[in-house]
Amino acid sequence: MEKILLPVRENWQELCRRPEIPGIDLENVVRDIINNIKSESDKAVYFYSGKFDGILPGKLKATSEEILDSIEQIPQSLKNAINVAKKNIESFHSAQLHTEPVIETIEGVRCWRKNVPIEKVGLYIPGGSAPLFSTLLMLGIPAKLAGCNEIVVCTPPGKNGKISPLILYTAQLIGISEIFKVGGAQAIAAMAYGTESIPKVYKIFGPGNQYVTKAKKLIQQDGIAIDMPAGPSEVLVIADNKANPEFIAADLLSQAEHGPDSQVIMLTDNPNLIDKVKSEVDKQVEQLPRKDIALKALENSKLILLATLNDCIDFSNMYAPEHLIINTADANYVAGNIKNAGSVFLGNFSCESAGDYASGTNHTLPTNGFAKNYSGVSTDSFLKKITFQEINAEGLKNLGPTIELMAEAESLSGHKNAVSIRLKSLQND
Amino acid sequence: MEKILLPVRENWQELCRRPEIPGIDLENVVRDIINNIKSESDKAVYFYSGKFDGILPGKLKATSEEILDSIEQIPQSLKNAINVAKKNIESFHSAQLHTEPVIETIEGVRCWRKNVPIEKVGLYIPGGSAPLFSTLLMLGIPAKLAGCNEIVVCTPPGKNGKISPLILYTAQLIGISEIFKVGGAQAIAAMAYGTESIPKVYKIFGPGNQYVTKAKKLIQQDGIAIDMPAGPSEVLVIADNKANPEFIAADLLSQAEHGPDSQVIMLTDNPNLIDKVKSEVDKQVEQLPRKDIALKALENSKLILLATLNDCIDFSNMYAPEHLIINTADANYVAGNIKNAGSVFLGNFSCESAGDYASGTNHTLPTNGFAKNYSGVSTDSFLKKITFQEINAEGLKNLGPTIELMAEAESLSGHKNAVSIRLKSLQND
Repeated sequence: MEKILLPVRENWQELCRRPEIPGIDLENVVRDIINNIKSESDKAVYFYSGKFDGILPGKLKATSEEILDSIEQIPQSLKNAINVAKKNIESFHSAQLHTEPVIETIEGVRCWRKNVPIEKVGLYIPGGSAPLFSTLLMLGIPAKLAGCNEIVVCTPPGKNGKISPLILYTAQLIGISEIFKVGGAQAIAAMAYGTESIPKVYKIFGPGNQYVTKAKKLIQQDGIAIDMPAGPSEVLVIADNKANPEFIAADLLSQAEHGPDSQVIMLTDNPNLIDKVKSEVDKQVEQLPRKDIALKALENSKLILLATLNDCIDFSNMYAPEHLIINTADANYVAGNIKNAGSVFLGNFSCESAGDYASGTNHTLPTNGFAKNYSGVSTDSFLKKITFQEINAEGLKNLGPTIELMAEAESLSGHKNAVSIRLKSLQND
Repeated sequence: MEKILLPVRENWQELCRRPEIPGIDLENVVRDIINNIKSESDKAVYFYSGKFDGILPGKLKATSEEILDSIEQIPQSLKNAINVAKKNIESFHSAQLHTEPVIETIEGVRCWRKNVPIEKVGLYIPGGSAPLFSTLLMLGIPAKLAGCNEIVVCTPPGKNGKISPLILYTAQLIGISEIFKVGGAQAIAAMAYGTESIPKVYKIFGPGNQYVTKAKKLIQQDGIAIDMPAGPSEVLVIADNKANPEFIAADLLSQAEHGPDSQVIMLTDNPNLIDKVKSEVDKQVEQLPRKDIALKALENSKLILLATLNDCIDFSNMYAPEHLIINTADANYVAGNIKNAGSVFLGNFSCESAGDYASGTNHTLPTNGFAKNYSGVSTDSFLKKITFQEINAEGLKNLGPTIELMAEAESLSGHKNAVSIRLKSLQND
């Protein structure tokens, strides 16, 4: 980890830059995949399973036997843990469903918004060595709470050609039964355009590798919505002299183990903390099974000393971290001044992994500075808010002349006439 | 308008297709504009003003004198109308600001979401013959209510080289002072990447021509957020034997006058209504100053007879109209079954132009079937929702073992360790 002491403000923007990701141009490759899925449907899905995974998926859709079998394969202790996480995620995400009042903006003019679920959604769950069943909880639970009618899951099979029982178990637990054994860009294309086996959806969620990310960008151009743009995961810790260096090091490493392109940053106003955290990181990293990945990520990572806690706040707002841990004596003061972040963790005991798994908040969050203009996934992400209005005769009398004048000023006589013709009929009453 | 009687359900999908827009490939043109704005900044803005508008803009930013002068130029009656619209839009959009409760998901684990404004937003307001000051109300008011710190407006100058006084008047009324005399793709690029004169923003809103729309798609790839994908405007009317054919015709024409690529559709279960509405349309269109545009749009438009009102509902949900007028005896029954629409108008007196201008709902809405997966602009569009959590020692004791088990099952030991190291410190207390 690089140590940076009291950088001048002019250099902060440069320090906020994310590590460059080696630029393979995947556009043509992924465009080909999409076009082939569109034209060859299921056959192209099998072709890419052969080409990229080398695994013949058999039937693409998980059978009810496979799903039932998974229930036997998960130890009871883990089932209990998943249940706790599910309950907490449900509590937090159901509180986001809120019925708005009808507003009578002027007498006789009633306006309101209604939550209506997006009918068909697709969830991409990365698989491989560590199938991310936690991501299925984070996407599937709000989709269910929103009331989405059709929830399609795509996930790549493991080396044994099967979907991880953890994914199948989690899916059935939250009531999802359409689970398909397909990964990569071909999975995104299949859900975007539909194949014989895989239903077409209107919005696609979930993380993935560079192929998946590129496919999500490209299908968005065709009007299929996506959760948010994606980049490598990251954490920023703001710490003062009250923070425990062991805890900070553990938090930095929990993010660094995600991938070699992850970035972890500590900001502090306490000069002593830099070296303490550095040596704790060096010590703890040795214990990690994913040490090599973490060490790579640490090469992109920084311990930064700033003059004051307010400077730390300003820097963090400029960086706009996906995860922000505020490990300071007065965490609420810092939190009150946060303008850009995905999810914020307050105090010595709020470790990021709590939010990654089980506290109840969502872990699908904006990375790469996108916290400046995007929110994390929530129940809202699975809803449309449709506006309604009901105007009675009195309401039109009250509002009509206003509409007529404004339409005229925009030279839109037809708009004016839709009001005038009604007002005239009311005069004749 | 084409009359279609009792089409079989298999043909509905085809009937829901929007008219093809003549496919000019603007990608290279617009990419060039973006690259030149990035490299040449303000100079490129002036270059494109010369190339496309032929108008030397002078200073790009509207001066305070220009803004003050505009106040004199608007007749008092129109000022009063704009004030009524402003008040109604404010009432409806301020009701969307809602503070969510803190949820204690498990003892000692408190989670909440907070609304935080997107700091910098850009509003594009088309100009030319009819400057759309109503769009400035619809975007500027929620931006202000959300609390956006910097609100930048770009709008092309009129033939006299000046910004319409209607735009300037409306801007000062809602408290916006950064108004720039630049239109087209160059305006979008300038707000996306910043120039010497025009500030960089994080999210760009507003309608525009094909260049503007393409520019918004391309800058989105660089992580600048946009309000929604765009297409031509449209209305669908569901009418039964209680509906007034004159009103329906006026509503269809108010949409048809928008542009030659607009589409208007009437669905009914009443065979008599088709011809009545057709002849009313033919009569009323003759009176419109924008008759030629409306006639073009009517070529793409349809009067469709379906067997039942429930069929009309199903068809409308498949079409997913931007504007839906429900002109039936029991409009609430129909409204209760609407799954996909941008904004819905109930009953004989709720004309679309009310929502276009002054009832309070937003007029920036998803077109082209995007109502299946996007909402219209609201106060939410100018906010991020940041999640926060505060876990105390007891909370971590309650939740820690759950996190440890789940992290282990995903082979993420670093995640587990961030919990274990804290639990261990608590044992030592």
